[in-house]
Amino acid sequence: MHDTTPQFQALYESMLTFVNTCMSGHDPSHNPAHVHRVVALANIILDAERALHPNTDYDGAVVKLAALLHDIGDRKYLHTLTAEGENETLEPTTMVRHALVKHGAPVNLASKVQTVVSHVSYSTETKNPSAIRQLIDNERLIELAIVQDADRLDAIGAIGIGRTFTFLGAQGTKFLVDGKWEMNNSIEHFGEKLELLEGMMKTETGRKMAQERTERLRIFRGWWEEEMELISASRV
Amino acid sequence: MHDTTPQFQALYESMLTFVNTCMSGHDPSHNPAHVHRVVALANIILDAERALHPNTDYDGAVVKLAALLHDIGDRKYLHTLTAEGENETLEPTTMVRHALVKHGAPVNLASKVQTVVSHVSYSTETKNPSAIRQLIDNERLIELAIVQDADRLDAIGAIGIGRTFTFLGAQGTKFLVDGKWEMNNSIEHFGEKLELLEGMMKTETGRKMAQERTERLRIFRGWWEEEMELISASRV
Repeated sequence: MHDTTPQFQALYESMLTFVNTCMSGHDPSHNPAHVHRVVALANIILDAERALHPNTDYDGAVVKLAALLHDIGDRKYLHTLTAEGENETLEPTTMVRHALVKHGAPVNLASKVQTVVSHVSYSTETKNPSAIRQLIDNERLIELAIVQDADRLDAIGAIGIGRTFTFLGAQGTKFLVDGKWEMNNSIEHFGEKLELLEGMMKTETGRKMAQERTERLRIFRGWWEEEMELISASRV
Repeated sequence: MHDTTPQFQALYESMLTFVNTCMSGHDPSHNPAHVHRVVALANIILDAERALHPNTDYDGAVVKLAALLHDIGDRKYLHTLTAEGENETLEPTTMVRHALVKHGAPVNLASKVQTVVSHVSYSTETKNPSAIRQLIDNERLIELAIVQDADRLDAIGAIGIGRTFTFLGAQGTKFLVDGKWEMNNSIEHFGEKLELLEGMMKTETGRKMAQERTERLRIFRGWWEEEMELISASRV
């Protein structure tokens, strides 16, 4: 199914409504607005990569649908998902494929989107980086590279900073590190994960876009440390 | 009661335990760590102002206790306060005075601290700015100026940015603006309130310290707008 056909447009619109419904109650770090930004970023990367590699065949339908559905089945939010009226099986490894087929997607498209969605996350990649390389380099699932980069761009820069603290607040006392619910937990997350994302970008376009946003994380962390040092220096 | 006496130290320690207990469940935007930063900032401002105005008499005990207790009775969190075992009256206009007297503070000190605490907040000031000017300029409650500035410094800069988004996440769907729970609500808060605080600083020291932190808010908002514009430009 080509992403310029009316059939694709109808499928996309229908999945957009599905995503907006499923995720409407999520906190602003992982809500529909986040998904819409990731879709826009994926489209930007797709266009730029197509211009850079005119002989490569990119499946635009997979990029757009996987970007749209990339957080359906996210284990952090699985318990909050409200399936559309029916008693859906909330099984993260198949729920995207099921939903797509139910909304009229061809099975091969639905399966390819499910594979991308199942391998987008940072934690999935850090557990088994070679599985991701295998999919992208050997099986030529280049759409995964694009959606991963788009999702990670939304985790860095000013937007990433806002999302990190919003998530801290929204998680409540579930977000305890060493028994503490403190903003420093979020700042540690910068060095442990966010500032590493630039080095894990898979597309030339994504890597380039990540540079400035990563610099913003570093500047912000510098401000933070300066403000905190002033405080600790003044304590006797 | 002078703030260098052992009696004051004992009272302060006892109130510190009270504050840590009362506020331990609060989200990290208004938890004990916030209070400890405000106390440290108030001490920094107090020292600097004493050096600038050697002939002015500052009540250090009032500054330290009011900074420590400034969020006790905050209406945003009143429902979450856990009073110490007893059935305390959760009346914001008197609860600080009651708690201080109960912990051994002289009544005049307790009353002065209560007056500062009752007039610290931004919303109290915007409702009636002349009441604040009256207290500081005519009644020479200069300690209010110091504690206000300290509290507002913690609302700006990198720490202020972190607190704003943490508060957004923690407030949950209570934090709806135009029916939406979105990060843009927080960014609007920058222009509507946070960037105005510098102009409301009451001490020379506070005003100076606010400059760089306010510049950080502006830089961050510039990043945010740039990242958001990229997204909206890519949508058809």
